[in-house]
Amino acid sequence: MNLTERPFRLDVADDGELRPATSTVRRRLSDMAGMYHDAEAERSALAADDPLVYEVFQYDMPAFAGELVVCTTVLRAGKVGDEFFMTKGHYHEQRDRAEVYYGLSGRGRLLLAKDGECEAVPMVPGGVAYVPPYWAHRTVNTGPEPLVFLAVYPGDAGHDYGTIETTGFPQIVLERAGEVTVAPNPARTR
Amino acid sequence: MNLTERPFRLDVADDGELRPATSTVRRRLSDMAGMYHDAEAERSALAADDPLVYEVFQYDMPAFAGELVVCTTVLRAGKVGDEFFMTKGHYHEQRDRAEVYYGLSGRGRLLLAKDGECEAVPMVPGGVAYVPPYWAHRTVNTGPEPLVFLAVYPGDAGHDYGTIETTGFPQIVLERAGEVTVAPNPARTR
Repeated sequence: MNLTERPFRLDVADDGELRPATSTVRRRLSDMAGMYHDAEAERSALAADDPLVYEVFQYDMPAFAGELVVCTTVLRAGKVGDEFFMTKGHYHEQRDRAEVYYGLSGRGRLLLAKDGECEAVPMVPGGVAYVPPYWAHRTVNTGPEPLVFLAVYPGDAGHDYGTIETTGFPQIVLERAGEVTVAPNPARTR
Repeated sequence: MNLTERPFRLDVADDGELRPATSTVRRRLSDMAGMYHDAEAERSALAADDPLVYEVFQYDMPAFAGELVVCTTVLRAGKVGDEFFMTKGHYHEQRDRAEVYYGLSGRGRLLLAKDGECEAVPMVPGGVAYVPPYWAHRTVNTGPEPLVFLAVYPGDAGHDYGTIETTGFPQIVLERAGEVTVAPNPARTR
């Protein structure tokens, strides 16, 4: 495998876009079918405009433990029914790889799950949130502005989205009576 | 080895201090004896007040490739003679480990060296600078404010300061006629 040979610089634009990025993911609600708990609200939102939920701007790296992937995520403000916009969530394919998040703007939660346990770490500008090895992770925008954060993870971590697609996260984040509320996920299958 | 078991959050204070930190390094000029090219200016500065040059606030991690160490550095503004304040600089003990820097405030250069080659990557707020595997790295504050940045590197990277202490960096960063100037290091031994 060829490792990165020369130093380089990237810039995070004011809107959170990483420049240059070598891969960009844009997920609309239709790319997350069945992930929100309120199926009727999801159908309505899809019929109305299939909103853009989030974008990930990534600088890809060789799949080697000593390299570090850098990406930024811009998670839009919004809800599907009473459930805040969120990312799909994933485990690392190589399960023992950690990840570091650094909040740039907006507010939210980093949801983490492992063996049926769940934690919800606040994400704020200037806050570092640590995803330990073996924990699935998903971010949720609980505020009125885009949630923008920088992430760094080992080059050989990889992504496993399928497990969360199949089993769901143990908890979901809702607005209830105007409050951000972390609740058990009724759609959790195991 | 016990890996990190639970998620957690850290905060970067406005002054750049990482809270909580599990280890803090404070380096005064006397801790960097002989590293600046102007020995007479160094002696004068040491005699006057032995200035604090930089602080590193780190959250230590298990020495495992899948974990990620997070630290912030606050590098003071100043010069020794015409040479800007800088960090000691190091290779990673495990040479094939990369590092990611993210500029929070202030301006400077990330100096990198490998096999006698050198690069100088600008560090600005919102800028990401990548230290590839095998490159020694040192940061230099070229502005009037503290240079503050976040760094992330693999848990098993380790530090080798001795090689740079012995050989010096290929280049140094000076103020010449009011301009930031990267120049060959006259004290470079090999």
